[in-house]
Amino acid sequence: MNTYTNVKDLGDLHQAVQEALQVKQDRFAYKSLGENKTLLMVFFNSSLRTRLSTQKAGMNLGMNTMVLDVNQGAWKLETERGVVMDGDKSEHLLEAIPVMGSYCDVIGVRSFAGLHDKAFDYEETILNQFIRYSGKPVFSMESATAHPLQAFADLITIEEHKRTARPKVVLTWAPHPRALPQAVPNSFADFMNEADVDFVITHPKGYELDERFVRGARVEYDQMKALEGADFVYAKNWSAYRDPHYGQILSTDRSWTVSKRHMDVTNNACFMHCLPVRRNMIVTDEVIESPRSLVIPEAANREISAEVVLKRILEEAK
Amino acid sequence: MNTYTNVKDLGDLHQAVQEALQVKQDRFAYKSLGENKTLLMVFFNSSLRTRLSTQKAGMNLGMNTMVLDVNQGAWKLETERGVVMDGDKSEHLLEAIPVMGSYCDVIGVRSFAGLHDKAFDYEETILNQFIRYSGKPVFSMESATAHPLQAFADLITIEEHKRTARPKVVLTWAPHPRALPQAVPNSFADFMNEADVDFVITHPKGYELDERFVRGARVEYDQMKALEGADFVYAKNWSAYRDPHYGQILSTDRSWTVSKRHMDVTNNACFMHCLPVRRNMIVTDEVIESPRSLVIPEAANREISAEVVLKRILEEAK
Amino acid sequence: MNTYTNVKDLGDLHQAVQEALQVKQDRFAYKSLGENKTLLMVFFNSSLRTRLSTQKAGMNLGMNTMVLDVNQGAWKLETERGVVMDGDKSEHLLEAIPVMGSYCDVIGVRSFAGLHDKAFDYEETILNQFIRYSGKPVFSMESATAHPLQAFADLITIEEHKRTARPKVVLTWAPHPRALPQAVPNSFADFMNEADVDFVITHPKGYELDERFVRGARVEYDQMKALEGADFVYAKNWSAYRDPHYGQILSTDRSWTVSKRHMDVTNNACFMHCLPVRRNMIVTDEVIESPRSLVIPEAANREISAEVVLKRILEEAK
Repeated sequence: MNTYTNVKDLGDLHQAVQEALQVKQDRFAYKSLGENKTLLMVFFNSSLRTRLSTQKAGMNLGMNTMVLDVNQGAWKLETERGVVMDGDKSEHLLEAIPVMGSYCDVIGVRSFAGLHDKAFDYEETILNQFIRYSGKPVFSMESATAHPLQAFADLITIEEHKRTARPKVVLTWAPHPRALPQAVPNSFADFMNEADVDFVITHPKGYELDERFVRGARVEYDQMKALEGADFVYAKNWSAYRDPHYGQILSTDRSWTVSKRHMDVTNNACFMHCLPVRRNMIVTDEVIESPRSLVIPEAANREISAEVVLKRILEEAK
Repeated sequence: MNTYTNVKDLGDLHQAVQEALQVKQDRFAYKSLGENKTLLMVFFNSSLRTRLSTQKAGMNLGMNTMVLDVNQGAWKLETERGVVMDGDKSEHLLEAIPVMGSYCDVIGVRSFAGLHDKAFDYEETILNQFIRYSGKPVFSMESATAHPLQAFADLITIEEHKRTARPKVVLTWAPHPRALPQAVPNSFADFMNEADVDFVITHPKGYELDERFVRGARVEYDQMKALEGADFVYAKNWSAYRDPHYGQILSTDRSWTVSKRHMDVTNNACFMHCLPVRRNMIVTDEVIESPRSLVIPEAANREISAEVVLKRILEEAK
Repeated sequence: MNTYTNVKDLGDLHQAVQEALQVKQDRFAYKSLGENKTLLMVFFNSSLRTRLSTQKAGMNLGMNTMVLDVNQGAWKLETERGVVMDGDKSEHLLEAIPVMGSYCDVIGVRSFAGLHDKAFDYEETILNQFIRYSGKPVFSMESATAHPLQAFADLITIEEHKRTARPKVVLTWAPHPRALPQAVPNSFADFMNEADVDFVITHPKGYELDERFVRGARVEYDQMKALEGADFVYAKNWSAYRDPHYGQILSTDRSWTVSKRHMDVTNNACFMHCLPVRRNMIVTDEVIESPRSLVIPEAANREISAEVVLKRILEEAK
């Protein structure tokens, strides 16, 4: 593997999950693989889970790790040619990115959607600049439109907890006070569409996601109907994708907050969320604290998904 | 050892000091103990000595180390159940802390007293949340009411420099322009009360510390009288503990600044302070620069106290 | 080597470059040298290249690395004796620096010129305090008046790309919207004056550098004349050094921007710059993107120059 930005990069998904479960049995088994290899993690946005779990994964593999925090939007890279750089942009990406690449062996990049310019976000401008100009393998630590380390961890978690060969998995929108990117639901859909599950998406009208991620998945606007018989309920807020409302909040309807009433119509489903979660907006205390809540083991699997990705990148580079 | 928050956690104090002196002889002797173990240091407040010395101690033991800076009060964790999280708190401690615990083997926490809410501070709300919910061994890197790594380093330093079996140790209040927590004097008293020393506390009236730390120690309001015959003078500022003045500055009396006049009545005492120190407020240039000043070796022993604590935690976890 | 602040610290310069080229062949060959050794990097100013390349160099040598970010001017160390520290300075350098020294084996310091007080800058007040009080080997990661890791990397790069035994190297001033320190041109001159090159400096009148760095080098005020027959063109902006204009911008003349017109009079010269670079202020897109541009390999050599310096410090300390 040389790049990790979506489900296709993992190849055979069943095999990837099996590899993850095996790595989890002994996460230090591949420690020699990362010897004298350096992982650079570049954060354009703040991070708790991704920072710690990815760093831990790199260390599990024996890598040296370096973290670069690019202050919230403060380091503006010039991206155009021909511009006289006499303003606030002190460096051009054509210098900055190859230089970062020269000090490491693998680069992880976190860069959220701005939600102001749909084309800029959905062309994955920043991530693609790293892929194109760094000269090193690049993986997404959540980009503008995707969070494939999260979705891979989610799939591992489903595999660990499923009770039937082909479980029903429901991705449900839930309300949130701030406008959030579509990266997590996009990647969750991207993975579920390739996994051996019965996948349903539910959200209020207007919250339709990009067809490139939804593909043929069933979309059911009646949340209660969607949840019937579910084995896994994956809650997440996102802002509108479709024009002319890109990046906007269209609903704050608290009837969508996942509660006991919702879980009661499921097949005693497991509850999932990528965290951080706003309690009693996304999900009630009762549901997230129930024995069927997987939010902590799901977060713990972030270390495993990152380790598999780094392991494959290191193996490819050998 | 599974938790380190006060002197009791060290068990036999004499033995702990001997272990420290032995570790200091060869600080890399236990490097295999930390192999494949990860130390997470969480800072809710800024730090120089604690950050560097604790990280160094972890590396001495062969641990991987990760540092998480939680911006000054910016990451507000929701702590109540039942709250609709539609405000500025983006995560509940019941998720955030177990997740941090899932990426490491040992957690150090720094979280100062706010000095606004005595009950919140003295119940050690934040530190206890980590102990309760992280699922991993937790040690204090200075909490609201205690700084046991500092006090342990202080005791090691006293042991190294004492000239009599049972030295006289005087903790003296000294003025400071800002309101400071009671954590350092609390823990110093906590340790001195268990050590083989003649312990005296001196401060202006109104600066009485919590009885749980002072216990039976002699309190002498006349500073000069307290200092007579002292072998060690430990200076420190703190704000008022007692109601209704909790967290307030009651005195800025510069006659309490430790000067040659004060040291002259001692038994050629060593001068100690935990640093950072305001010169000519807490202590004069002359005293802190004298050959009897131990402030630098005392700070250097922070590496040793942290290493003993981490070593014991790792040994317990084996 | 115990201190690295200028070209003299490297001793025989030819030998140092040969050592660098050998280290570059196998940058992990000296990994045992740094075992149980800790590198502390203290940043008073922000950094991308220096932070990553120096950390990488330390890890190549098997060192543990710790990074301390001192917020932009926020941590004001008191430097005077006798001052009553009741203001915003919370620590005296006489405590802070020895304490930092006690937790590590080698210290790198970055501290830019303030450009307000020429004497303070050119006496290298902060760097020299670390050298005097830390008790450990200290190296410059760009100080007020010098950037010797950059200049050493520049010399390595010239050695790798020169086509004649004694190439002509031209340091040319170029315009920039902000007032910049003289550290990079000072150190470049410092190195070129000791290297086997034909060295010429060109800049508008008023931009004369300190004679201690320029020494006997030829200064040619006509940029085009200076560039004639050059093998290497090293562009850099700096603010005025001479009184009464210290730290000021005297010219923004864009005719000094290095363009194809300038490169055409050279001997098909290589283009160099330390980065970050303002395109179309310092140099045109065309020149920096040409096959003769060395800016990326030059930055990559920062890892090598830092590794040689750390290697020599570790060897000396054995």
